[in-house]
Amino acid sequence: MSYKQIKLGMLGGGQLGRMLIQAATDWNVYTKVLDATFDAPCHLLASEFVCGSLTDFETVYKFGQDVDVLTIEIENVNVDALEKLEAEGKKVFPQPHILRIIQDKRTQKQFYKANHIPTSNFVLTDNRGDVRKHVDLLPTVHKLGKGGYDGRGVQKILSVDDLDKAFDAPGILEELIDFEKEITVIITRNQSGEIKTFPIVEPVFHSEHNLVEYLFSPAQLSDEVAQKAIDIATKIVKIWEFVGILAVEFFVTKAGEVLVNEVAPRPHNSGHQTIESCYTSQYQQHIRAIFDFPLGSTKLLTPSAMINLLGEKNYVGVAVYQGMRQVLNQEGVFVHLYGKTQTKPLRKMGHITIIASNLLNLHQKVDYIKGKLKVISE
Amino acid sequence: MSYKQIKLGMLGGGQLGRMLIQAATDWNVYTKVLDATFDAPCHLLASEFVCGSLTDFETVYKFGQDVDVLTIEIENVNVDALEKLEAEGKKVFPQPHILRIIQDKRTQKQFYKANHIPTSNFVLTDNRGDVRKHVDLLPTVHKLGKGGYDGRGVQKILSVDDLDKAFDAPGILEELIDFEKEITVIITRNQSGEIKTFPIVEPVFHSEHNLVEYLFSPAQLSDEVAQKAIDIATKIVKIWEFVGILAVEFFVTKAGEVLVNEVAPRPHNSGHQTIESCYTSQYQQHIRAIFDFPLGSTKLLTPSAMINLLGEKNYVGVAVYQGMRQVLNQEGVFVHLYGKTQTKPLRKMGHITIIASNLLNLHQKVDYIKGKLKVISE
Repeated sequence: MSYKQIKLGMLGGGQLGRMLIQAATDWNVYTKVLDATFDAPCHLLASEFVCGSLTDFETVYKFGQDVDVLTIEIENVNVDALEKLEAEGKKVFPQPHILRIIQDKRTQKQFYKANHIPTSNFVLTDNRGDVRKHVDLLPTVHKLGKGGYDGRGVQKILSVDDLDKAFDAPGILEELIDFEKEITVIITRNQSGEIKTFPIVEPVFHSEHNLVEYLFSPAQLSDEVAQKAIDIATKIVKIWEFVGILAVEFFVTKAGEVLVNEVAPRPHNSGHQTIESCYTSQYQQHIRAIFDFPLGSTKLLTPSAMINLLGEKNYVGVAVYQGMRQVLNQEGVFVHLYGKTQTKPLRKMGHITIIASNLLNLHQKVDYIKGKLKVISE
Repeated sequence: MSYKQIKLGMLGGGQLGRMLIQAATDWNVYTKVLDATFDAPCHLLASEFVCGSLTDFETVYKFGQDVDVLTIEIENVNVDALEKLEAEGKKVFPQPHILRIIQDKRTQKQFYKANHIPTSNFVLTDNRGDVRKHVDLLPTVHKLGKGGYDGRGVQKILSVDDLDKAFDAPGILEELIDFEKEITVIITRNQSGEIKTFPIVEPVFHSEHNLVEYLFSPAQLSDEVAQKAIDIATKIVKIWEFVGILAVEFFVTKAGEVLVNEVAPRPHNSGHQTIESCYTSQYQQHIRAIFDFPLGSTKLLTPSAMINLLGEKNYVGVAVYQGMRQVLNQEGVFVHLYGKTQTKPLRKMGHITIIASNLLNLHQKVDYIKGKLKVISE
């Protein structure tokens, strides 16, 4: 089979899309990106940028007309338009019917239950009043069915005092898992059905916010627990005949149980470090999958860590990066800034990947680097 | 020191510029590129693209007005304009007066002689008639003083029969060196004077054309020869107080002598493999140098090879890549296509980097991959 330039359409122009374009550039891909704002990280990097709503049927339908393959870098997009494009013969990956299930955490959770995929116990709630009916389940986590992102749309309800914090919209109330750690399996399946998983990572979440603060790869796990997680992730992509990259977030309980928390059908914050530390990055792997190329080796070149660069509290405005020089002075430290003009508290402004030949060196480097680079405003 | 977005101007929009933009993207750099053709590899990737002549004074002078730092990815640019911009306070790296010396192989060669830098014997020639006066020097190489690129502007004159092939323009006639191998030292110096060299590479040139066909890194050299080459490269950047990246091409003679062939004041074909195989790529290193950041570690992560993807003979037209699937099926193989629409014989259309844990594996992989991916036309 001969290869010519492919025109790739992408819904969403954030940092995931930006890193996808960086990878796609190696293969001479024409990238056409839709995002609602001109300040999007992809704006100036994409071959073609269209400013418009990701959730508007007409906008998405029209956007997808002239591309060879259409993908997403954010879940919150108009699936009706994608389904119409798919019905008309367009290659849309991941497939729209799967996006529809994942987009709503309620249908996602019901999918796990129906397919005997281990996950925490839950009840569906339609509004805040519904949540009040389930005080017997406390302590719990309340999640918005649709539209949550980057830590928004998730609220712990530990006691009756927290009930007022519940979302007054359709959601799920989940049993709070007293987990030992969280892990993420990033798995890819191409059109031909080939499946590969990246080495499992161990993200550490921000103490106050439901955001990845940093992570280590590979995760420190028993082979048994690792295999359980890989088997579950594999089962999910096989049931769906999923095409593209899927991040599966798990809780590992103190008893060694592995429970699916949620999935994201796109490159993931827990996979940034693959750019430097694996033979194939998650971005290139996603492109391989949706172009139906052979999947790349996911072997580690080196252990790695990834630190998210979040906007400092109390700073809003044009972003300035403090400590760039000190960080760049260290061997094996890779700074990625996402090109966002404005910073605000906890906004994901970039990340730092750190590689080292062994885990001890890696931990030392992370301790040194953490907090050295700060995003403030002018 | 705080870091904000930097606006980087670049003269030339070819593949070197394209890979420089890919690296610059990690640091939120605004890239403004000047190139004479809209088909340039950087066109759609640059934050801003200006179509215009690189050798026209007004075009270059106007182009450089509003950037923070101005650099090049090709030597054949209007140096008068760069000198004027520099005189007006603009940061122009590498410095224009050095570009002026390098741009003309005659002044470049005279610089080596004046500074006791080992190089082959030569005479300056003004025209074809001049070359005829030096039959006593045969066998020789005749090089055009200005404008040679990618194998053009270099002509072997082995016997009197070849004299008609000499250039009828100012050039140099060099003694033909019976070398054991050619090696390249890529060296970088930042504004603060910090200097680092990449591991020496060993390019293998195309048998008919003066083009890199493939290379291995690291080069197989005695420590003594390697040190000689590094010392010479270091001497050159120190004399010039050069800022940026400089590729120094050497002949290693059978007697272990190390002679400078020529230099290129920009990222170089012999440094592509640093993207995957070194802690810091040549592209990021150049950016570090011209932004006066600390230089990155040039340590090898793994041995590597690089194969140039040249347009197949007898094919002219819209490029098609044969064998992409077979190549992508191999572990540690990285395909870079430059986004050139049209192919023609020997045009540099892309490259393949191959990494392996040891040199034996590397040679086996190179043998397997070589010739698998072919650039033909529709």
